[in-house]
Amino acid sequence: MSGNGFGHLFRFTTFGESHGPAIGCVVDGVPSRIPLAEADIQAWLDLRKPGQNRFTTQRREADEVKILSGVFEGQTTGTPIGLLIENTDQRSKDYGEIKDSFRPGHADWVYQQKYGIRDYRGGGRSSARETAMRVAAGAVARMVLDALVPGGVTIRGAMVRMGIQAIDYGAWDWDETKANPFWCPDAQAAKEWETYLDSIRKNGSSIGGVVEVVASNVPVGLGSPVYDKLDADLAKAMMSINAVKGVEIGAGFEAASLSGEDNADEMRMGNDGQVKFLSNKAGGILGGISTGQDVVVRLAVKPTSSILTPKKSVDRQGNEVEVSTKGRHDPCVAIRAVPVAEAMMAVTLADHLLRLRAQSGGF
Amino acid sequence: MSGNGFGHLFRFTTFGESHGPAIGCVVDGVPSRIPLAEADIQAWLDLRKPGQNRFTTQRREADEVKILSGVFEGQTTGTPIGLLIENTDQRSKDYGEIKDSFRPGHADWVYQQKYGIRDYRGGGRSSARETAMRVAAGAVARMVLDALVPGGVTIRGAMVRMGIQAIDYGAWDWDETKANPFWCPDAQAAKEWETYLDSIRKNGSSIGGVVEVVASNVPVGLGSPVYDKLDADLAKAMMSINAVKGVEIGAGFEAASLSGEDNADEMRMGNDGQVKFLSNKAGGILGGISTGQDVVVRLAVKPTSSILTPKKSVDRQGNEVEVSTKGRHDPCVAIRAVPVAEAMMAVTLADHLLRLRAQSGGF
Amino acid sequence: MSGNGFGHLFRFTTFGESHGPAIGCVVDGVPSRIPLAEADIQAWLDLRKPGQNRFTTQRREADEVKILSGVFEGQTTGTPIGLLIENTDQRSKDYGEIKDSFRPGHADWVYQQKYGIRDYRGGGRSSARETAMRVAAGAVARMVLDALVPGGVTIRGAMVRMGIQAIDYGAWDWDETKANPFWCPDAQAAKEWETYLDSIRKNGSSIGGVVEVVASNVPVGLGSPVYDKLDADLAKAMMSINAVKGVEIGAGFEAASLSGEDNADEMRMGNDGQVKFLSNKAGGILGGISTGQDVVVRLAVKPTSSILTPKKSVDRQGNEVEVSTKGRHDPCVAIRAVPVAEAMMAVTLADHLLRLRAQSGGF
Amino acid sequence: MSGNGFGHLFRFTTFGESHGPAIGCVVDGVPSRIPLAEADIQAWLDLRKPGQNRFTTQRREADEVKILSGVFEGQTTGTPIGLLIENTDQRSKDYGEIKDSFRPGHADWVYQQKYGIRDYRGGGRSSARETAMRVAAGAVARMVLDALVPGGVTIRGAMVRMGIQAIDYGAWDWDETKANPFWCPDAQAAKEWETYLDSIRKNGSSIGGVVEVVASNVPVGLGSPVYDKLDADLAKAMMSINAVKGVEIGAGFEAASLSGEDNADEMRMGNDGQVKFLSNKAGGILGGISTGQDVVVRLAVKPTSSILTPKKSVDRQGNEVEVSTKGRHDPCVAIRAVPVAEAMMAVTLADHLLRLRAQSGGF
Repeated sequence: MSGNGFGHLFRFTTFGESHGPAIGCVVDGVPSRIPLAEADIQAWLDLRKPGQNRFTTQRREADEVKILSGVFEGQTTGTPIGLLIENTDQRSKDYGEIKDSFRPGHADWVYQQKYGIRDYRGGGRSSARETAMRVAAGAVARMVLDALVPGGVTIRGAMVRMGIQAIDYGAWDWDETKANPFWCPDAQAAKEWETYLDSIRKNGSSIGGVVEVVASNVPVGLGSPVYDKLDADLAKAMMSINAVKGVEIGAGFEAASLSGEDNADEMRMGNDGQVKFLSNKAGGILGGISTGQDVVVRLAVKPTSSILTPKKSVDRQGNEVEVSTKGRHDPCVAIRAVPVAEAMMAVTLADHLLRLRAQSGGF
Repeated sequence: MSGNGFGHLFRFTTFGESHGPAIGCVVDGVPSRIPLAEADIQAWLDLRKPGQNRFTTQRREADEVKILSGVFEGQTTGTPIGLLIENTDQRSKDYGEIKDSFRPGHADWVYQQKYGIRDYRGGGRSSARETAMRVAAGAVARMVLDALVPGGVTIRGAMVRMGIQAIDYGAWDWDETKANPFWCPDAQAAKEWETYLDSIRKNGSSIGGVVEVVASNVPVGLGSPVYDKLDADLAKAMMSINAVKGVEIGAGFEAASLSGEDNADEMRMGNDGQVKFLSNKAGGILGGISTGQDVVVRLAVKPTSSILTPKKSVDRQGNEVEVSTKGRHDPCVAIRAVPVAEAMMAVTLADHLLRLRAQSGGF
Repeated sequence: MSGNGFGHLFRFTTFGESHGPAIGCVVDGVPSRIPLAEADIQAWLDLRKPGQNRFTTQRREADEVKILSGVFEGQTTGTPIGLLIENTDQRSKDYGEIKDSFRPGHADWVYQQKYGIRDYRGGGRSSARETAMRVAAGAVARMVLDALVPGGVTIRGAMVRMGIQAIDYGAWDWDETKANPFWCPDAQAAKEWETYLDSIRKNGSSIGGVVEVVASNVPVGLGSPVYDKLDADLAKAMMSINAVKGVEIGAGFEAASLSGEDNADEMRMGNDGQVKFLSNKAGGILGGISTGQDVVVRLAVKPTSSILTPKKSVDRQGNEVEVSTKGRHDPCVAIRAVPVAEAMMAVTLADHLLRLRAQSGGF
Repeated sequence: MSGNGFGHLFRFTTFGESHGPAIGCVVDGVPSRIPLAEADIQAWLDLRKPGQNRFTTQRREADEVKILSGVFEGQTTGTPIGLLIENTDQRSKDYGEIKDSFRPGHADWVYQQKYGIRDYRGGGRSSARETAMRVAAGAVARMVLDALVPGGVTIRGAMVRMGIQAIDYGAWDWDETKANPFWCPDAQAAKEWETYLDSIRKNGSSIGGVVEVVASNVPVGLGSPVYDKLDADLAKAMMSINAVKGVEIGAGFEAASLSGEDNADEMRMGNDGQVKFLSNKAGGILGGISTGQDVVVRLAVKPTSSILTPKKSVDRQGNEVEVSTKGRHDPCVAIRAVPVAEAMMAVTLADHLLRLRAQSGGF
């Protein structure tokens, strides 16, 4: 339990720095005989890949994943799955400034304080590069969920706010999230965001955003009270993503403003003899356990502090300096958080699904 | 890792139901020779105790904690600390309705689905009664922090919003939190809340709230990237508290609306040769590691669904029913979440402090 | 993971010192709807209870276990099971000598070195008193195994060697283990041991022994390669018992002397279409996974160093002293290890059974 | 916690099959600023490498380890260390027989039962090939121990018995372990073993052995009672090594034959004011905690069942067959267990050293 892994029964552990030779992970606990090929993982990595449009960082990585173990003749064997992605874009670069000065809002200074040493190249371990392995592990988790849950589990993410510009929930269209560079489910908002973000990008500034992830067809019963609640583990999963500063489930912070009458999700019997909820303020989780409704999580992503405007900082020698980021960076890192948040939803659900299998009642 | 414990090196595991003979916990991993007496724990339990005014549940519990092990001659011995509180208020009561009908918004239905059995008396394990042991474990964690951190760590909570009524941050006064029944740091707001909540209470309704917890004098370096980040563990800790639906760190969801310029916490050198941050949008955590600034966490607490107004539900036999709660209940459960959130902050910090000791650099 | 718990999915955590007010444990991860009553646990505790004959310590404990949580109307609810035993035999005693002098072969000195403090009364946490909670947790594990494995799992222990006097395996009779005070399966040996141990006891000396535990009707597939092998976890479980200095599986150390021909367990098809092994040198475990044969573990228990003969030691002040134990103590602590070893077998199997349920193949 | 990792604070997780593209591991929890280079690891791997004489398998692997992360400018950074070894010797081979028939004494049959699928090539995950990563992780652990313990910790292994031929402990010479192919510390025994093992090898047979590992200059205080005792974790570590069937500490099974008088390690004050033990029956561990004496562990290794003599078995279709191993295999796999056992000693001590740092008393 040393910090670089997530999950208990479905557990993955990542390694790798931004500018080292490779990044990788070990996915342990995957049941056997689940279909898995590199293409199943690559598909999700391709969706995450930066540099595909002018709104995400121009780093160009092939991001080709290799399965090194745990799969035999197209199926998992129950042994750990080793995954590796070589870093191809390690252009020699002048890190002089980053090497000695600490970028405000980055992990630079605090890593130096904690460890007395840091791999300053591209942010080292604190780089968003690490999230590629989350997406890879998430792809494996999706295969597990699809194999073990009848009908499969659908996990989709969207960006629902960019800066102060929120979407219209009434205009939600999942297909639209694939049609614009923002994972925006509202076509009209997407258009406005394009102009908005172009202006931010040109000014060398940046902006935050809110991401929503929805899991559908989640089995009833995921979550282990009282500390390993499904929502508690989701909160940890999401808050562990770079730049995330807030997490909410269902109505979330809005619930704090509601009365008990308005917040209750009433229940009726459906024609199929199954209980139906008349609303989903709970976001699919009650008492820490999934109810079978959509699990809905939102996360707040801060703006990157890699901006053109010089900001006050200090260097290793204790001198006061001004730091600005000249290279091209993401004007809105929330965009890239979407597939990562989907992946973290997938691994959290897969982990709890295995726990449910272990500890379901003796009946 | 079966769901009822929290923490790794400082780890506590709780047990007990609302109406069983007792609740208790084991606190493991406490270093030796830390002063600890029952009174050190009792003091915090007394602050949490419900029934002290008309705004919290009228259940009357003595909540007298007993230390059963791990302390010798007033000091911890390094062995596990067993804590026990007997349940004294288990009045025989007619649970007929709760026994068979599921209260909307409660864990009743989902426990029944997951486990095929539930202790319906007072909510059983999902009752807020369990949080007494969190407060007890938190009290031990405070002793650890105070013993190991020069100057001690101060952890204080406040309620900053009740329903739609927010405090004025400019009027913040920590002393005020002890002077009103709401942990409200704004004297004026506290007065208004009294009227507001009285009206809600009399109507048999309920309302949500937002709680803020601040830890001061936190050492630099707490948090283990990239999954056991301090903020990730705090998010899990807070989201595991009953009725919490959202967690944010520092600027939190507001950060999603900010530009990079506005969100950056600039750094300068202080007169004492130490780095000073000029703001604290980060809430004391960068890259998952504490910076030495105040650690600031806010949580959204939903309104209890135990209300007088009948709501649509179902019973165990699959009949559609209406459920209302006649007994007296908390009109705003966020109030009782304050000391619990403080406690979860304490245990999370203590756990990461021990990890820092273990893994601090070899230099 | 702070040292006082065992198991992952079926996990128990104990607390309590020899002369504190009580000992207890939390058993977490038990599936719901498994029958459980205090009597199910008490029965095993009664078998373990010391002071029942002249060959075990004369401490008299009622050892009455109370279930504090996790059971409702005679069945487990899936919530943690809190167990408590009050210490009734805490006669005021002069600990003067033990308080300041370190008994050779005991944990006294090393606890003092590690923790800088120790509860010296009766050995504190290092006392065999703690093993009562192992037996209690083992009783719960047996209920889990019996509920989830068709036909139940039978776990029986025996003492197979006392000092240099080994049993005749040809004379093995399980019923005999209940008929003598040594859990000896060989009636003839039991008689000889009685004389042998009487003489040791009268001389104020002590002797070691070897315990064998056999689990029958174990499902195929328990054990998670490559570090959480079933035999690896059993080795840890057994070596964690007080005074145990060696553990072996199946042929054990004898296997080191065998040729590959003599050590192989050949396989044939049984009339029932199931694979049969023609021998069990492996002790029921291959590659870390149970084969369905009897799981056979043996443990070496050292003689207690609480003896009448004075031995050289030191005291807290660094003076050289002689220490002898005047009170009555166990001449052969291996006897009391038998039910404890059975219990540790039960919890290890239960833990791996739950893991098998979680991670069994997706087919 | 899914089976393929070991340790808590110093934790490594391995992946890889015998005939996949590569094997690897992630070492997490290493403190920062510890010197580490590939050569530090390669040196130990070279000692382990099979095929160096006629007594170990002829598989020829370059076993070149690559550090993929966690090291910067020659020092650890506190981030996870990714290690990779490509499998170079994957000659196409006819696995027809192994593919369908189960070798008695191997994990083949039980893997097939548990997982419903297995990578039969060279034993897949159950192959001793995995142990290369243990040695690699062990090399990192040695660097940690040497950096954090003044004077460093010396860990050395030896083979003390081959079949029925034991060494003379009086003739022990550590230098001799490097001078013969058996890690035998007794020059005379080594000569006899050569003849003995040649004859076994020529007959296509195999033989077991006993390995002893000794750690010197171990700090006092490693080990966390009562379940994570140092000896309990060592027992698990050693029993997890392929083919190991028994583990003992200090006097081990012999202690079962001793009287309390003969087994006690008496204590005196040394001239340096430190406590000295007059013997080491305890093997350096009392009450689960290291005493500062040499930690001594012995393990029993069974003979490989890959032998020329046909043995009765079954195939996947349920037919009864005879299986013999024609290729060249290790006549005594205990030889190769020596460096692996050393490595497991190193990782166990490193893990507990970090725990001691975390939880040492508040004084």
